[in-house]
Amino acid sequence: MTELRENVERYWRAAEARDWTAFAGTLAEDVVYVLPQTGERISGRERYVRFNREYPGDWHARIERVVAGPPDQVVTWVRCTVGEEEMDALSFFTGDASGRISTVTDFWPEPYEPPTGREHLVERS
Amino acid sequence: MTELRENVERYWRAAEARDWTAFAGTLAEDVVYVLPQTGERISGRERYVRFNREYPGDWHARIERVVAGPPDQVVTWVRCTVGEEEMDALSFFTGDASGRISTVTDFWPEPYEPPTGREHLVERS
Repeated sequence: MTELRENVERYWRAAEARDWTAFAGTLAEDVVYVLPQTGERISGRERYVRFNREYPGDWHARIERVVAGPPDQVVTWVRCTVGEEEMDALSFFTGDASGRISTVTDFWPEPYEPPTGREHLVERS
Repeated sequence: MTELRENVERYWRAAEARDWTAFAGTLAEDVVYVLPQTGERISGRERYVRFNREYPGDWHARIERVVAGPPDQVVTWVRCTVGEEEMDALSFFTGDASGRISTVTDFWPEPYEPPTGREHLVERS
């Protein structure tokens, strides 16, 4: 579990540094990446590294929170910036027996206007 | 940490059962609820229970994954359904010294069309 957590922290550091060799080293060979919002799935380390290496834009990722718990699960909340734009990325990781990342399920929530009818309960920043 | 995890599981069961007394019992009196996507914030147990009690629609929540880790953090990934519509809710919890929920940060990611240019790497479900 600690190994998975360390690998996940290394994964984000390597992505931020564009160090694709170090990034690949955190992944199981049969890693599966899933984006539930688009229904996309990428299978295998080689393809997944390529997906990240080819990802357009001068993006930067800063870890906001890491939660690691049994059995073999880690969640990260990351702030990603591309120029002036800032987004949250929420990633659910599972690991293999050696602590390498075997699945990544990524969510990218976007801003939206709140529904009316609850102004009496909320403040807005 | 275990107490916080138990409280978080009780929180979802109580919400699903519309048992607002049990729901309130999982929360610290000064609980803060944050929705980063809308910039909304709700402060205090009474208001937050009321927000949930008044939330419109015949919604149902089913826990997909729980990750609980030190120090005092729990994340849930919940599938919410309202009629035919299904959504993921991702919630980051922190607890107070007695294991009651002191902050909830909720994300509601929505489906989107994938950008072009990565079809050579992905499958779609």
